Amino acid sequence: MNSFGRIFRVSIFGESHGECVGINIDGCPAGLPLTVDDFTEDIDRRKAGAKGTTPRKETDLPRIMNGVYNGKTTGAPITIIFDNANTRSGDYEKQRAVPRPGHADFVASKKFGGFEDYRGGGHFSGRLTVCLVAAGVLAKRLLKEIKVAATIVEIGGEADTEKGLQKAIDAKDTIGGIVECTVTGLPIGLGEPFFDSAESMISHAVFAIPAVRGIEFGTGFAAAKMFGSNHNDSIIDNTGKTVTNHAGGIVGGITNSNDIVFRIAIKPTSSTPKIQHTLNVETGETEDFSVKGRHDLCIALRVPVVLEAVTAFVLADLMLLEQQISRII
Amino acid sequence: MNSFGRIFRVSIFGESHGECVGINIDGCPAGLPLTVDDFTEDIDRRKAGAKGTTPRKETDLPRIMNGVYNGKTTGAPITIIFDNANTRSGDYEKQRAVPRPGHADFVASKKFGGFEDYRGGGHFSGRLTVCLVAAGVLAKRLLKEIKVAATIVEIGGEADTEKGLQKAIDAKDTIGGIVECTVTGLPIGLGEPFFDSAESMISHAVFAIPAVRGIEFGTGFAAAKMFGSNHNDSIIDNTGKTVTNHAGGIVGGITNSNDIVFRIAIKPTSSTPKIQHTLNVETGETEDFSVKGRHDLCIALRVPVVLEAVTAFVLADLMLLEQQISRII
Amino acid sequence: MNSFGRIFRVSIFGESHGECVGINIDGCPAGLPLTVDDFTEDIDRRKAGAKGTTPRKETDLPRIMNGVYNGKTTGAPITIIFDNANTRSGDYEKQRAVPRPGHADFVASKKFGGFEDYRGGGHFSGRLTVCLVAAGVLAKRLLKEIKVAATIVEIGGEADTEKGLQKAIDAKDTIGGIVECTVTGLPIGLGEPFFDSAESMISHAVFAIPAVRGIEFGTGFAAAKMFGSNHNDSIIDNTGKTVTNHAGGIVGGITNSNDIVFRIAIKPTSSTPKIQHTLNVETGETEDFSVKGRHDLCIALRVPVVLEAVTAFVLADLMLLEQQISRII
Amino acid sequence: MNSFGRIFRVSIFGESHGECVGINIDGCPAGLPLTVDDFTEDIDRRKAGAKGTTPRKETDLPRIMNGVYNGKTTGAPITIIFDNANTRSGDYEKQRAVPRPGHADFVASKKFGGFEDYRGGGHFSGRLTVCLVAAGVLAKRLLKEIKVAATIVEIGGEADTEKGLQKAIDAKDTIGGIVECTVTGLPIGLGEPFFDSAESMISHAVFAIPAVRGIEFGTGFAAAKMFGSNHNDSIIDNTGKTVTNHAGGIVGGITNSNDIVFRIAIKPTSSTPKIQHTLNVETGETEDFSVKGRHDLCIALRVPVVLEAVTAFVLADLMLLEQQISRII
Repeated sequence: MNSFGRIFRVSIFGESHGECVGINIDGCPAGLPLTVDDFTEDIDRRKAGAKGTTPRKETDLPRIMNGVYNGKTTGAPITIIFDNANTRSGDYEKQRAVPRPGHADFVASKKFGGFEDYRGGGHFSGRLTVCLVAAGVLAKRLLKEIKVAATIVEIGGEADTEKGLQKAIDAKDTIGGIVECTVTGLPIGLGEPFFDSAESMISHAVFAIPAVRGIEFGTGFAAAKMFGSNHNDSIIDNTGKTVTNHAGGIVGGITNSNDIVFRIAIKPTSSTPKIQHTLNVETGETEDFSVKGRHDLCIALRVPVVLEAVTAFVLADLMLLEQQISRII
Repeated sequence: MNSFGRIFRVSIFGESHGECVGINIDGCPAGLPLTVDDFTEDIDRRKAGAKGTTPRKETDLPRIMNGVYNGKTTGAPITIIFDNANTRSGDYEKQRAVPRPGHADFVASKKFGGFEDYRGGGHFSGRLTVCLVAAGVLAKRLLKEIKVAATIVEIGGEADTEKGLQKAIDAKDTIGGIVECTVTGLPIGLGEPFFDSAESMISHAVFAIPAVRGIEFGTGFAAAKMFGSNHNDSIIDNTGKTVTNHAGGIVGGITNSNDIVFRIAIKPTSSTPKIQHTLNVETGETEDFSVKGRHDLCIALRVPVVLEAVTAFVLADLMLLEQQISRII
Repeated sequence: MNSFGRIFRVSIFGESHGECVGINIDGCPAGLPLTVDDFTEDIDRRKAGAKGTTPRKETDLPRIMNGVYNGKTTGAPITIIFDNANTRSGDYEKQRAVPRPGHADFVASKKFGGFEDYRGGGHFSGRLTVCLVAAGVLAKRLLKEIKVAATIVEIGGEADTEKGLQKAIDAKDTIGGIVECTVTGLPIGLGEPFFDSAESMISHAVFAIPAVRGIEFGTGFAAAKMFGSNHNDSIIDNTGKTVTNHAGGIVGGITNSNDIVFRIAIKPTSSTPKIQHTLNVETGETEDFSVKGRHDLCIALRVPVVLEAVTAFVLADLMLLEQQISRII
Repeated sequence: MNSFGRIFRVSIFGESHGECVGINIDGCPAGLPLTVDDFTEDIDRRKAGAKGTTPRKETDLPRIMNGVYNGKTTGAPITIIFDNANTRSGDYEKQRAVPRPGHADFVASKKFGGFEDYRGGGHFSGRLTVCLVAAGVLAKRLLKEIKVAATIVEIGGEADTEKGLQKAIDAKDTIGGIVECTVTGLPIGLGEPFFDSAESMISHAVFAIPAVRGIEFGTGFAAAKMFGSNHNDSIIDNTGKTVTNHAGGIVGGITNSNDIVFRIAIKPTSSTPKIQHTLNVETGETEDFSVKGRHDLCIALRVPVVLEAVTAFVLADLMLLEQQISRII
């Protein structure tokens, strides 16, 4: 549902055009230094405004409501809220008759009996990813020497992302992309058999990010074309380092001390300026339709810091779990 | 850890060369007909013996220990056990000095301080997937008109899978493949915001299957190359049917009544007959090494029924959760 | 930790003298009518101001931040916040040297390494029970015809509670009491074997209320003195009604359609005006000490509505769980 | 449902007259020595045969199916099974028409639609407590210097338990009792705010034991009659030791280094030899009825070791959780 994690446990809430969006983090150890300024860098990285992103700009100032005292975490739950200042609900209300293709509008209305807050995608909005980024800031601090870094590696099939973005601008359409995440400085042993493999936990959190269509670890789908003798990573020393890293740092669901490397596929923004032919639920007929409002041309551009965040809180949780079990004897 | 699911909850246990492997299923409604014979078809589909699979043959006879009375589920937990009859531990004991590349041997030893049951991969063995199949049989029964079907679509990059397999036989090596899963007959509304999207839950369970390296839903990684106007699926009627199905049946993390379609990448079997050069943990030096024992040439061949099983129990759980919330008002 | 419930899931946060206290409720069905006014009655019942209660008065105005739109729940998480307006931290800061006997001060400082927000008990404060009341309001609405009612049945050993309270006033001391809760209109079948018996779930939540020292269902501790032939409740008809109700409405952990009846023991308020002799952690010596600040003479007076609330959200959760399982076949 | 615990997680299964009962323990650290002999003492303490207990005797030989290799835990789940050898189902089958007063028969039939295994109480049988004892043996080992000890302190209202038992024998009836549990050697800090207080977790597990009607910590219900100045425990040194222990070792839901002391009320065995007048569900009329089969005169006699067990696995889980959080910084 809206919570994730066994020990370092995040709970997300809020809607795009409601009063606020926010996140609650339970299970964070006491004594971690944390100020509002610590959030600035990552929240700025997620912000709109660059070429290809929406002109909707939020101040995105995190309000730490609880769990921090005298600049340090207290061990109590930490609630961080972002007010929704810049909402233009008028853009959306008329659109209920025509559920936007590629959006949750139609399924949300069916699932919640029409009671959902439909404005701007409501609880399904990408707006909520700012909360993930906030949880990520805290998780990164907990991870210390473990570093998580994500970057766009492809837009519209082009490794030269500027070129890929230009294709969308030229076509007056939206476009997809691929984001790669690398984690360095990992110990051996994160991930729990049988169901909570490192890949299971990461992919669980990753598919909560809107617009993700696929994930692959290490050599990924290319591994399906390989021979075993080429794919296996030979171990070279007792720290677990391997000659190659086809496994992407995870074997048997457990980190093996090599870098975690994985890629995710981001679909093109659903809200394209192009005319679409789709159902009007009031008339029961299909009709031509175009999305109004302010949107990202390439939502992948804003994903890297979000991807880092979910990866960080997954690893923080696995780290807390591993330490407790391994240290007891 | 070793349990998965919120209501229809499975817990797996056992080791490759221990007394048995098994699974416990909690939260299954009472009154479902269930006999040992119901397991035969799916368990046979997973069995070894066909070209490209291991010569190790288990009888794989499920023993229903609890939770079924007079041929029907009772509402109490259901425990299903498979005895390990055909074990040849001698194959494995000598191999401890050289952790097999691509296997969990090395990380398991580090994580569990050398106390792990290392014989045949122990708790990390693919042997445990027979338990997943058993849980899948029960979940499929619960799903009724919802049908889950998986099939190999590629071996070694060849859509003609016989051809792909022959490449491995010729090369005296192991080889990877791709398995596709399709789910038909779905209602709208399975999957829970924010973290328990249908993709999140499916991928969580899928990455518990050994050897999975990637997953993509609908158009998947190809979506990253597309324009929004091409990728969006226009809705054509009030049942939610869409013209195309690039989304793979899931929008906003929620099923939209179209077929769920997803593919997973399976790496080549790690236990290749080829010589590998890797670490001997006792000498601290790398050396030439080859895997002994009985293994699958292409583990992907045995994955489809396992993939169906995990998909089925994920959907059974989401269905139970959805019904309870939607029916209360 | 700070969350409770499987489907109807509450997460509590905040500190006595921080910015606010609040609660997040996940898993609440969509379409329930809910306005700020719905909270007034129960929140007023918890309020201080009556004889024997603290003079600290909060406005206790709930702010519904999310999950409600056009006066109805949306199916998304509901966050309710209470601002902390009336805080006088100066009362508490000096007291760190002398952890208040009967309070969490000492253990909190040890557990959280001195990083806890110690002002007014911080996250351990009874102030947080206003959040429980808020969750209870929502749960009661979901329970519909199931009614939960709690009342004080004893103060200081006196069934005449005015008399019991007067003993405390005369003694210039604080005093304990007993609160009884009755639930009517229950269906058969709430509670889940083995670990989530109705008593297990209720007592789990009840012991989260500060100052609770015991709980007994039905005849309770008196049952330990009885013969079986006197204690057993004979069933009289197919609705499950029984002649007597020694079981307190729960048999085998499952509701049996009779009223749930249970009692809880509330210790005397720890913050007594009396002089106490206890440790000064700075000097390492024991010394005479008296509690400053504004406190309840008999905290039991404020417990009934809190007890109703936790009982209501436990039953709401069990009801959601039960419906899902029973309706599936 | 049938699992309990966050990290040290037990899952129980089986029925009184099915093939076996058993328990699965996940999250147990690797490297703990464990043999079948380790179970003997506690399982013998639970066994029937003494005065006042049932003549049904099981061999109660635990079979460790998984998770132990070379006499040590491996870090994988541990499954322990007890075969049901000595079953006499004939005793029970005729009794379906008349649900036994005080038993789960009636509610189980309603909850599970008549599909429940009704023989000997099925999944509701006290037989399953042997599984709790087994989990307790493992938990006690993990707790090391923390010692858990329970004893009967009262039968039928008599502190001289032999006298209390004689009352039942004389009356040809069953009788209730009180069991007290003491835990010594505790560190400060076990228990988690807000909902997972030490009392919450212990009482949750305790009410899973059949026949428990109440629980009180420290001074318990007597605290409701006391003044604050008498009830508060003054701290005397920096280890947290207090002059008195009215709190029963737990303040603010957190252990305070003093002994945990709590008592539970056990109702008289429901299966009394006395004639009872109750519903025949087939005729719809009430009738005279007496319970057949082999039963305990005073079930409280067999509870102490079961109570120790659940207390031990609750504390093991809280200890694992606490260590993880406190050690991370």
